[in-house]
Amino acid sequence: MNDRLDPELALPDLAAIRAAHARIRPHVHRTPVFTCAAVDAEVGANLWFKAESFQKIGAFKARGASNAVFSLPDAVARRGVVTHSSGNHGAAIAYAAARRGIPAWVVMPENAAKVKQENVRRLGATIRYSAPDAASRAAVCAEVERETGATLVHPFDNADVIAGQGTAALELLEDVPSLDVVIAPVGGGGLLSGTSIAAKGVKPGIRVFGAEPANAGDAALAYRSGRVEPLPPGLATIADGLRTPLAARTLAAIRANVDEVATCSEEGIVRAMRMTFERMKLVIEPSSAVPLACLLEHSLSAPGARIGVIVSGGNVDLDRLPWQRGS
Amino acid sequence: MNDRLDPELALPDLAAIRAAHARIRPHVHRTPVFTCAAVDAEVGANLWFKAESFQKIGAFKARGASNAVFSLPDAVARRGVVTHSSGNHGAAIAYAAARRGIPAWVVMPENAAKVKQENVRRLGATIRYSAPDAASRAAVCAEVERETGATLVHPFDNADVIAGQGTAALELLEDVPSLDVVIAPVGGGGLLSGTSIAAKGVKPGIRVFGAEPANAGDAALAYRSGRVEPLPPGLATIADGLRTPLAARTLAAIRANVDEVATCSEEGIVRAMRMTFERMKLVIEPSSAVPLACLLEHSLSAPGARIGVIVSGGNVDLDRLPWQRGS
Repeated sequence: MNDRLDPELALPDLAAIRAAHARIRPHVHRTPVFTCAAVDAEVGANLWFKAESFQKIGAFKARGASNAVFSLPDAVARRGVVTHSSGNHGAAIAYAAARRGIPAWVVMPENAAKVKQENVRRLGATIRYSAPDAASRAAVCAEVERETGATLVHPFDNADVIAGQGTAALELLEDVPSLDVVIAPVGGGGLLSGTSIAAKGVKPGIRVFGAEPANAGDAALAYRSGRVEPLPPGLATIADGLRTPLAARTLAAIRANVDEVATCSEEGIVRAMRMTFERMKLVIEPSSAVPLACLLEHSLSAPGARIGVIVSGGNVDLDRLPWQRGS
Repeated sequence: MNDRLDPELALPDLAAIRAAHARIRPHVHRTPVFTCAAVDAEVGANLWFKAESFQKIGAFKARGASNAVFSLPDAVARRGVVTHSSGNHGAAIAYAAARRGIPAWVVMPENAAKVKQENVRRLGATIRYSAPDAASRAAVCAEVERETGATLVHPFDNADVIAGQGTAALELLEDVPSLDVVIAPVGGGGLLSGTSIAAKGVKPGIRVFGAEPANAGDAALAYRSGRVEPLPPGLATIADGLRTPLAARTLAAIRANVDEVATCSEEGIVRAMRMTFERMKLVIEPSSAVPLACLLEHSLSAPGARIGVIVSGGNVDLDRLPWQRGS
């Protein structure tokens, strides 16, 4: 960790990400990297896709959660961990806690999708229900902390989580050291923060881009304004995993290390997602298609460059693939 | 090649498959191998999936076609190649011919899917139309051979094609030498023939299984009767790539080297295909799900064994995934 004065803004440095990599190695996959001549031709650049869809629990979140859980001292870990994400981070915390043999609580709204509830239960965690709003989720989380002594592991506003997420870029740059650019999707900013710190640490001249849906375009705004910005009101995105504002901590990392944050349309996400299924034969979730969508729409551009893309995950509803909704 | 007297029954031996592997290496991918704890738990065995979905043109057929095309002497190759598959083999021949810089003709019915026609054209081959029946396709093929001097490359009744298809099993056994069993889907039998010759050649004690849809269950019958059998009449299968009877040549290889040929239901194929998308995050075509379907339905069984599965390809209609048809 670097020694910022404010622990609320503490960020990992490259050494912390390397330590995270060694710590989580027994618990996560080293995911494969894919290339595709047909996609390269569409974009006009050379792309390497780091497929975290093949990660434990189907998403990069296994990295950050494992690092946070395995960083806890024994006496603290024993009391367990709690979080309030019903999505990939909730599953990742359940997974990492089971690997360490400690209890985990995942707070989710009563109306959360049954498949997500079953997923977390199958991984051995206990579900605690809240009302379907952020305040209620936080209140139930705090209640679990008080009752059990469990440690809260925030999905992104946590230096250990950010360090874990940065390990994907570390592996990508080990496998493809010649990259000119790395792109990651951005929601709360944990992945982009970790990616940017790892990439700039390993290779200072590399450019790091963030990609988000225009309909959840707070990070592009915040990157320019320097303040955490709210989500644009009243808009939905199929990349719902990215509908989260930055935290002050992730904004600081992104302002320090990221060269550009751009947005894409919903149609662009669907097109990029379908292209990834069709040409690359990879099952990905909509959030994972956002970097390619920005490249296809030229909101991000690096002609002829060697570009690494972090494919964040593959947990998608196969009954409702987005290109089929109109059919 | 071994020296059987009848060239119509000639089969490659292990040396020919190794030679094919060296010959095609510059032109095909060494595809990755995947494991999945969740699928292992469903089956009660340890599975390694050789993902030919990531192969050139999205299917193992690139291997056999490349070996056949690059085995031709220059003077013969120059006049080009012709085939009558509108599916993966047609695309594979177009691909291999383009790599060698020779002309290719693909004979297909006028009503062939536009996407297949475009695919073959994009790869640089010339389409010749026939009526939509086997006799007409063969006649048009023969016409092209006469007119151009092109060499016919049959999709499976061809020793060089079989040798190329066997290279996938060769790689799988290099990567996972401890396998007890290898399973491949069986349609015309080129993949299963090559797989069985390679696997038994490298590791004589290994068991090799063939898997096919019950609705195209000619190979299971032929394996027992010792004669080429017709397809069961009046039945359709979503694994339409496997709706092809064996040839005498492939039947001979399978009878000599395969330990069991089993069938599965259509529901089983859909379930296995969905499981592969959902748990393994792999886009596969229905034919590729047939080995897993046989394991899930216990028509093939090897409890606790270390099983390699050849995942034949990933070219699937994403607008009509089979678990969605009723919805």
